[in-house]
Amino acid sequence: MKVITSVTAAQKLFLKLKNKKIGLVPTMGALHEGHASLIRKARKENDIVTVSIFVNPLQFGKNEDFKKYPRPMRNDIGICRQNDVDYVFHPDARQFCRADSLTEVGVKKISDVYCGKFRQGHFKGVATIVLKLFNVIQPANVYFGEKDFQQLFIIKKLVRDLNVPVRIIACPTVREKTGLAISSRNAYLNECEKQLAPLIYGTLQEARKKVIRGGLKTAAGVRKFVRTKLSPLIKGVRGLSSPIKIQYIEVINPKTLERTPHIDKRNFRLLIACFVGSTRLIDNV
Amino acid sequence: MKVITSVTAAQKLFLKLKNKKIGLVPTMGALHEGHASLIRKARKENDIVTVSIFVNPLQFGKNEDFKKYPRPMRNDIGICRQNDVDYVFHPDARQFCRADSLTEVGVKKISDVYCGKFRQGHFKGVATIVLKLFNVIQPANVYFGEKDFQQLFIIKKLVRDLNVPVRIIACPTVREKTGLAISSRNAYLNECEKQLAPLIYGTLQEARKKVIRGGLKTAAGVRKFVRTKLSPLIKGVRGLSSPIKIQYIEVINPKTLERTPHIDKRNFRLLIACFVGSTRLIDNV
Repeated sequence: MKVITSVTAAQKLFLKLKNKKIGLVPTMGALHEGHASLIRKARKENDIVTVSIFVNPLQFGKNEDFKKYPRPMRNDIGICRQNDVDYVFHPDARQFCRADSLTEVGVKKISDVYCGKFRQGHFKGVATIVLKLFNVIQPANVYFGEKDFQQLFIIKKLVRDLNVPVRIIACPTVREKTGLAISSRNAYLNECEKQLAPLIYGTLQEARKKVIRGGLKTAAGVRKFVRTKLSPLIKGVRGLSSPIKIQYIEVINPKTLERTPHIDKRNFRLLIACFVGSTRLIDNV
Repeated sequence: MKVITSVTAAQKLFLKLKNKKIGLVPTMGALHEGHASLIRKARKENDIVTVSIFVNPLQFGKNEDFKKYPRPMRNDIGICRQNDVDYVFHPDARQFCRADSLTEVGVKKISDVYCGKFRQGHFKGVATIVLKLFNVIQPANVYFGEKDFQQLFIIKKLVRDLNVPVRIIACPTVREKTGLAISSRNAYLNECEKQLAPLIYGTLQEARKKVIRGGLKTAAGVRKFVRTKLSPLIKGVRGLSSPIKIQYIEVINPKTLERTPHIDKRNFRLLIACFVGSTRLIDNV
């Protein structure tokens, strides 16, 4: 396994490898079982597996966690090695995001809703860097987790709109035994928050079942159900301030990403974003 | 020579050809000697030469000449054949610019000055389509004329910023014997305008010489010199309305595209955009 930090060297290398089928797993590091599942799938389907590790400054807002985002490089490289990765692309930030860069890639409309509404410029930052990674690594297949459902949708749209010759492969969210979606940001949770966080997924699952059985028919109903279920945690209990703050709960058509006030029970997805303590978590079912 | 109109077919074809060195000449058709010179250069330097012909709707403003832009396809195909082109990519507009497309590529700041100031959204349209062409055709080398100096600069910046693995090759402007820069839009000129249009280049050349000899030291001086020289035509003569309207005259540093109020006589470029009658022409020296 080789770790490449020079952007120019990477570009030369991957041009030489253009006869090989390259699978790319783009990550911001702090690799976990979710990433490992993507890497294993990539390993099965490609000649060469590349993992990119880059904490992308463009996708963090001013008051977000760019600086404190975990960067356990040694551990990450261990996970890549264990999973038989060929190349880790860990670009030098000043070389990869040059200060004089002027080019932006944006996917209109669908970048401004849901998470995009609360994280201004986030998806523009994602789209720009993802396209740069595609250009350097020239993958045939790229693997993303479904946890970041909106991101996945936006990247698929970007690829289609710009005729990028890659296939985007969506992989199911990997969860803890408790149901909590595995995320690098789970590392921010304290012991108490770790106990509470799985309730998000549990409640989403309950809502999902109710929709399928016909007990919940509208997005407003789902919203009310989830808020009521989590209400002791939203309101705060026993003198503690509220440990969970919901940013949004949305019911969407997964084919268009559009809101569906009246739910089609054969074709819907529930999205949630909330803070558990000061940690922002997202999930969807 | 093969003409390809299906985007999907083109994408498949060029993926198969990825071992070949492909040279691309992107055009909007109405091919002339300027394009032919690019094609000939591409022919010398690549295994395969592709000419794209696509009148890009995204780069025209609402009141511009999208509809009347010349589309002499038969003649264009003849010129390509004569110059030993391998593939003409002439994509179906509805397939290549889908109505549901949401993705935009923009190069900030340098797209908003000079021509960009007068043609809102023009360079975003250029950048988006050019990147799509690169993604479909996967060229090693791409050829542009220097006549569109700002466009060339923006595309070079786009390629660098997004790590696109292509080399942009700038080729000198081809001119009529009169000095007039050859352009598809010259076809709009009437007989009288054809006589006047070469004065633009002539005046630019005079200004250039004066700068080099130290007679003109500032952008303001150049502007005044050009306006004075062309003044009978700007003001209108013999009862005719003014045949030439100057949109801008700028003196820039060709390495940064920045305005240089005080000219460095070893490193400058004069840009002009003007209307001759109702035809907008640009040139630079």
